[in-house]
Amino acid sequence: MKIGSSIRFNKPRPISSFASVVGKKEGEGPMKGYFDEIVPDPTFGESTWERAESQLQAKTFQLALQKGHFQEFDIDCLIAGDLINQCTGSSFAAKKTKIPFLGVYGACSTMAESLFLAGILVDGGYSNRTAAVTSSHFSTAERQFRFPLSYGGQRTPTAQWTCTASGAVVVSAEGNAPCITGGCIGKVVDLGVTDASNMGAAMAPAAADTILRYLQDTKTKPEDYDAVVTGDLGNVGSLLLMDLLLKQGVNLKEQHQDCGMLMFDEQKQDTHAGGSGCGCSASLLCGYFLPKLEHHEFRKILFAATGALLSAMSPAQGESIPSICHLVEITSQEESSC
Amino acid sequence: MKIGSSIRFNKPRPISSFASVVGKKEGEGPMKGYFDEIVPDPTFGESTWERAESQLQAKTFQLALQKGHFQEFDIDCLIAGDLINQCTGSSFAAKKTKIPFLGVYGACSTMAESLFLAGILVDGGYSNRTAAVTSSHFSTAERQFRFPLSYGGQRTPTAQWTCTASGAVVVSAEGNAPCITGGCIGKVVDLGVTDASNMGAAMAPAAADTILRYLQDTKTKPEDYDAVVTGDLGNVGSLLLMDLLLKQGVNLKEQHQDCGMLMFDEQKQDTHAGGSGCGCSASLLCGYFLPKLEHHEFRKILFAATGALLSAMSPAQGESIPSICHLVEITSQEESSC
Repeated sequence: MKIGSSIRFNKPRPISSFASVVGKKEGEGPMKGYFDEIVPDPTFGESTWERAESQLQAKTFQLALQKGHFQEFDIDCLIAGDLINQCTGSSFAAKKTKIPFLGVYGACSTMAESLFLAGILVDGGYSNRTAAVTSSHFSTAERQFRFPLSYGGQRTPTAQWTCTASGAVVVSAEGNAPCITGGCIGKVVDLGVTDASNMGAAMAPAAADTILRYLQDTKTKPEDYDAVVTGDLGNVGSLLLMDLLLKQGVNLKEQHQDCGMLMFDEQKQDTHAGGSGCGCSASLLCGYFLPKLEHHEFRKILFAATGALLSAMSPAQGESIPSICHLVEITSQEESSC
Repeated sequence: MKIGSSIRFNKPRPISSFASVVGKKEGEGPMKGYFDEIVPDPTFGESTWERAESQLQAKTFQLALQKGHFQEFDIDCLIAGDLINQCTGSSFAAKKTKIPFLGVYGACSTMAESLFLAGILVDGGYSNRTAAVTSSHFSTAERQFRFPLSYGGQRTPTAQWTCTASGAVVVSAEGNAPCITGGCIGKVVDLGVTDASNMGAAMAPAAADTILRYLQDTKTKPEDYDAVVTGDLGNVGSLLLMDLLLKQGVNLKEQHQDCGMLMFDEQKQDTHAGGSGCGCSASLLCGYFLPKLEHHEFRKILFAATGALLSAMSPAQGESIPSICHLVEITSQEESSC
C-alpha cells in the first residue's frame, strides 16, 4: 500500500535468517564481536580480488541459508548487487546457484534496495522466500575507484575506507523473526559535491530527503524508533545530516547511528571519516541490528542505507556526485506480530 | 501469484505509454520507420559520450511521459539501468527528475527486468504508475568494453554492434493499452563461453532456460504466441537457441524474432552478428512490438531480453561469461481485457 511516497506492506514480513562475514580489519574494529565470521585472508582463497569478493558474497549467502536451515531450492529469488563494474561480484556469485536472480545497483545503498525489493516480492505474493545479498571488498574498490595501492597515495581526512564485508538476508512470507514492515524508495539527489573523497557530504542530502519523507508519510518522529540507522555517511556526512534535518525541525541526535562510524575505531585504525561500501551497512544490519531486534533490545528501527552513484570516470569528467538513500522499517517480531 | 518459477499478475497491467529514440545508424536500418525519433547527432548536444547517453535516456523518458499525457508527478517510481560503469547513464538521467528511483543491472536484459519489476510494483499495489527505462550508446560501450575506436581494430564475425538507442515505458494500474500479464525471472547460466566477441553464444543457454521454464510453468506452446522475442542474441545466438530448444522438443522457428537481428541490415550496415545493447531490445519493444499489440496485429507475445553479465576486465581474468534472460508476457488490450 502506498502512503504518500512511502510503502507499507500488507503485513510485516519476517527476515527469517541473516548472516554477516567480514575481513580482517573489520574484525579488529569495535564491532568485532558481532559478526558471524571474520576471514583473515583477503583473497578468500581465490586468485583475483574480484573472485575474492564473489566468494565472500557466496559464503555469506550460504551461511544465511545454513543459519535458517534452508536449502537453495527454498529460495525463489536472489536479489544482489555490489560496487564492481557490471556488478560481477554478484553475478559471479549467483552463477554458483540455480536461483532466479535480479541484479540491482544502488552503490552503498544496495542492502536497503535489495531488502526492500525482497520484501515487496514476498509481500505481493510473488515469492515465498527471497534472499537479498550485497558485498564490498577493499581491494576491488580501491583498484577500481581510486589509486593502485602500491602508489601509497595519501588519503584526505574526509575519505572513507571501503569495508571488506558482506551481509545476506532471507525474507519469508511467514515466520518468527524481525520483520520488514515497509519503507521508502530514494530519489537521486545531487547538491553539487564533486569531491569523490568526500562521499559523506554528497550522500547526506539524499539521506535527509528520504528520512524526512518517511517520517512525514508515516506521521512518526525519531523518538518512535530505537535507532535511525544510516549507512555509510561517516562522521562528515553524519554531522551534515543532523544539520540538514535540524533545519527541517527534526532532531535525530538521540536515535541516529551510522554504520560507517560504527565499523572502525577511526583513531586506532586510521580510517579517517569512517567505513563505506555496500558490505559495511549490510554486515552491520545482519551482525548488529537484526540480532538486537531478534533479542528485543530494539523494538523498531529505520535502516536508511545511502549510496553515491558516481563512477571512477564521472568526477574526472567534472560531474558532481548524485546520491540516493533507500529506507526500510524493521520491527522486532513481538512489536509487529508478524 | 507464483506458478512454478514464473509469476502471474493479479490482473493484466497496461503499458499506458511507451517511447523509443535511436541514433543515426539505427535510423538507417530496416526498422527506421518504427521509432518515435531518430537523432543524427551522436553527442545529443553534450560534451561527453556518457552525458550523451544520459541525455538520450532522459529524452526517451520525457517522450514517454508526453505521449501518455503524464506529468513527472504522475510517476511514483522510475526503474532504470544501462551498461556504463556504475550505471551512471541512468542515475545521471534520474537526477533530472524528482521521482523515487530504483537502479537495476541486467546488462542487455535490463528492459525486461525493469519492465517486470515495474509490473510487480503496480500489480502489488505499491505504485499507481511506474516507469521503466534503459539505454545503450555505441560510443560509451565501445570505449568501456572494447578498443578505442581510433585504433580501427577489426571486429570478428560473431561480434555484435552496440546500438545507440533507448526505450521507456509507463506501467499503470488501470487503462486501455497493451498489458503485461506476468513473466519469469532469469537464472544466471554460464556454459563456459569466454569469447567476449561472441555474446550470442554466451546468452543463448540463458534464453533457452527461461523460455522453457515459462512455457512449462504456464503449460503453453510457442504457437500460443504471435512472437517470442529475444534480445539480443544476434544471428549466432539465435541459431544456438533454436538448437537448444529443439533438443528439448520445442520448435520456436515460426514464432522467434530477435531484436539484434531485426535492428540492422547486416550486409549493408556491416554489423556482423547483429545489434546489441540494452537499448536494442528496449527501442524495438517500444517502437515495433508494443505498437503491433496496440493495433491488434499481435495478440500475445513473450519478450525475453538477454544479458551477458561480464565486465571489461572479467574475460581478461580468464572468466567465462555468465548470462541471464528475463521474460515478460505482453498481450493486446483486447486479449487480456485489462
